[in-house]
Amino acid sequence: MTPGKLSGVGVGPGDPELLTLKALRLIQEADVIAYPAARAGAGVALSAARPHLRADQELLPLVYPVTASPEADLPSYPQVMRAFYDSSAEEIAGHLDRGRNVCVLCEGDPFFYGSFIYWHSRLKDRYDTTVTPGVSSVMAAPAALGVPLVLRQDTVTVIPGILPAEELTRRLAAADAAVVMKLGRTFAKVRDALAAAGVLERAWYVERASQDRQRTLRAVDVDPTTVPYFSIIVVPGREIP
Amino acid sequence: MTPGKLSGVGVGPGDPELLTLKALRLIQEADVIAYPAARAGAGVALSAARPHLRADQELLPLVYPVTASPEADLPSYPQVMRAFYDSSAEEIAGHLDRGRNVCVLCEGDPFFYGSFIYWHSRLKDRYDTTVTPGVSSVMAAPAALGVPLVLRQDTVTVIPGILPAEELTRRLAAADAAVVMKLGRTFAKVRDALAAAGVLERAWYVERASQDRQRTLRAVDVDPTTVPYFSIIVVPGREIP
Repeated sequence: MTPGKLSGVGVGPGDPELLTLKALRLIQEADVIAYPAARAGAGVALSAARPHLRADQELLPLVYPVTASPEADLPSYPQVMRAFYDSSAEEIAGHLDRGRNVCVLCEGDPFFYGSFIYWHSRLKDRYDTTVTPGVSSVMAAPAALGVPLVLRQDTVTVIPGILPAEELTRRLAAADAAVVMKLGRTFAKVRDALAAAGVLERAWYVERASQDRQRTLRAVDVDPTTVPYFSIIVVPGREIP
Repeated sequence: MTPGKLSGVGVGPGDPELLTLKALRLIQEADVIAYPAARAGAGVALSAARPHLRADQELLPLVYPVTASPEADLPSYPQVMRAFYDSSAEEIAGHLDRGRNVCVLCEGDPFFYGSFIYWHSRLKDRYDTTVTPGVSSVMAAPAALGVPLVLRQDTVTVIPGILPAEELTRRLAAADAAVVMKLGRTFAKVRDALAAAGVLERAWYVERASQDRQRTLRAVDVDPTTVPYFSIIVVPGREIP
């Protein structure tokens, strides 16, 4: 039997209208729709794509074993996650081996901090694999704010909020424009780093960019205890008029 | 008369199938389709959107007065460009004042190194203005390569190839993952900076990502005399499996 094809499809930041036409086509052509999910719920990738699914498509949730502290801080975390990516890759492979096309929904873009990278590394040499880019929250957050990100000679650095405080400060101080992703419980540390780097006053905060419960405010006004993981800091570049 | 609405719409990296559903809707609802263009031709933004236009829509090309050396190196360049953005903003305003909705097509994303930022700064306080994010070539180039860009704790820095050689080298050496945009005649300098920063061997090159004449190769194999402006360097992060 000819194996199925694997596609990693960026579905954008959450608004179902921010899927590309190509993502829509690939989703509707797929036999199996796989998507990462937390134990607590289905996640952004599925909710962005759900209005576009056919009724007869098989859903394959790939459920993370660990998504929050304190478990994510345990020494066993890397092995637990490796075992998860191994076993979920084999679930995907099982469908491909039966000749079924599998579309993996990816929040934002598949190759930009996406879990799809782990499945891609395990499956790309065994199956016909393609990747379709998507709108990243790096672009969706400035659009939500109505604040331009970067222009002309400025660089822009995207920084994971999970970095240690000193490295956050160093990266922010060296950047022209900057975006900090992966916030949540790291927010108080990130805010302190923004202040230490001298950019807190020009930093913006976007929660759930493009989604129903989107919220935008100045970073300095954010209550750190209310920040979800899917929120982002935007520091516009120096050349913005 | 109620003024029209202004929308800046990201149309993605060139493939007409990489428009979002929202971009498609806004384009089809607009009375006037404005787009940046070089004197030599219509440009990527219009060609990505053209299959989606209605026959009765008015096209408003915003033609750059200067797009290449040696003119772009002249001391008068900033004033010439400022006058162009002033006068083209007034052209857009003329349509808005007559109650017509104007959609400005933006290659990639409007707020990510986009000329739309100049029109936005001149018009946002006078008219109802919205921005719709698009797929950037930062995401389209790794997808074209089949090479993941960034994961986990790595940062990613986007660097304009027009920076001086020393700053290019310094930024590349400090980066985890990196993307260099705005190449063209700057390519030999960028290649030297990649080598000086010790990342040339793991750097990839993508020409016209997602477009008909897309070309991908290792950066070390590129002939600097053949590089168009719309090409990009991708240096994957250190944590990619």
